[in-house]
Amino acid sequence: MRISELASHTGLSVATIKYYLREGLLHPGRAMGATRADYDETHVDRVRLVRTLITVGGLSIERVRAVIQALEHPPASRHDLLGTAHEVLRPASEVDDEPVARQLVDLLGWPLHGDSPAVLQLAAAITTARAGGWDCPDALLVQWAGLARQIAEVDVSDELATMPAAEALSHAIVGTVLTDPILIALRRVAQQAVSAERLARR
Amino acid sequence: MRISELASHTGLSVATIKYYLREGLLHPGRAMGATRADYDETHVDRVRLVRTLITVGGLSIERVRAVIQALEHPPASRHDLLGTAHEVLRPASEVDDEPVARQLVDLLGWPLHGDSPAVLQLAAAITTARAGGWDCPDALLVQWAGLARQIAEVDVSDELATMPAAEALSHAIVGTVLTDPILIALRRVAQQAVSAERLARR
Repeated sequence: MRISELASHTGLSVATIKYYLREGLLHPGRAMGATRADYDETHVDRVRLVRTLITVGGLSIERVRAVIQALEHPPASRHDLLGTAHEVLRPASEVDDEPVARQLVDLLGWPLHGDSPAVLQLAAAITTARAGGWDCPDALLVQWAGLARQIAEVDVSDELATMPAAEALSHAIVGTVLTDPILIALRRVAQQAVSAERLARR
Repeated sequence: MRISELASHTGLSVATIKYYLREGLLHPGRAMGATRADYDETHVDRVRLVRTLITVGGLSIERVRAVIQALEHPPASRHDLLGTAHEVLRPASEVDDEPVARQLVDLLGWPLHGDSPAVLQLAAAITTARAGGWDCPDALLVQWAGLARQIAEVDVSDELATMPAAEALSHAIVGTVLTDPILIALRRVAQQAVSAERLARR
């Protein structure tokens, strides 16, 4: 298909597609002459992936580029694959708080490395919350960890082990980016329900 | 205290404090002459709140202004107070998807209004996920809702009903903004743990 068809298939403008091409987020089409190129379904999938990462995941262009590079050279081990997903999804602004990360590994008692991107992201979130006046009691963290564990049991499916590596990585990244906002919103909805039951008459 | 002391107490620059004053996010200090003003603990608290909303919550200046206005005129009912918190925290970009919102109310069976900000936020997150290729099966939503409910049972504390209204509203907003990233990161950490157990050798 032509670039104009790729644009209409994905609901984006030709200018945006050209921007993705220039930034190396989208692989070039097959040259059909000096000024024309042919695009296929791999381009449609890639454009949708890039769009989701930017608009839903809030990833910068640099981060999206890191995702694309990881997809083109996925890690050999399926376990490292999730680490790669967590590395690219980790907020760019965070500073490492290794002592808190080590405490977390002890607190949770799970098979974790204190320097894994996920643990460092959690440590940073806790340090930020404490600085903002919310003290993060250990008992509550452990309770939440148990709930997070039930979510993760579904997230880390056997599918992830059997899909081709690049597809599994894309699945892990996109699944996380798309479903984080659902979990966040479900918490608010549940707060509304609990509040309606407990507080409606106060 | 002087503006320079307010800045050093909160770790921000004098220029940032002046910006908050100009934008109406911070109430003026008590005038001590033509060019000097005196600031107190209420200013320290407010500056920290604004900072948290912008840097952790990712709220725009307009949204922060709405939070401040809500804090100055909190709703009379404690239940409406959470609705106000959810309204200001709802992503600005979202479009209402009322049919999906109504389906959700039916699916969850909780005492909810289909036009509440939390339900509309959830409907928008689900519609976005589906457009991105993740189909959100009802069974999984119901399972997640049960877990979200356990979190909300702690969130909607009796404290919320007994605190002064403005304090309770601030507590609800800041608590949510600071702890959403912890829950998101806990999910990744739990994925690492499950992955280490299941996938490490693949």
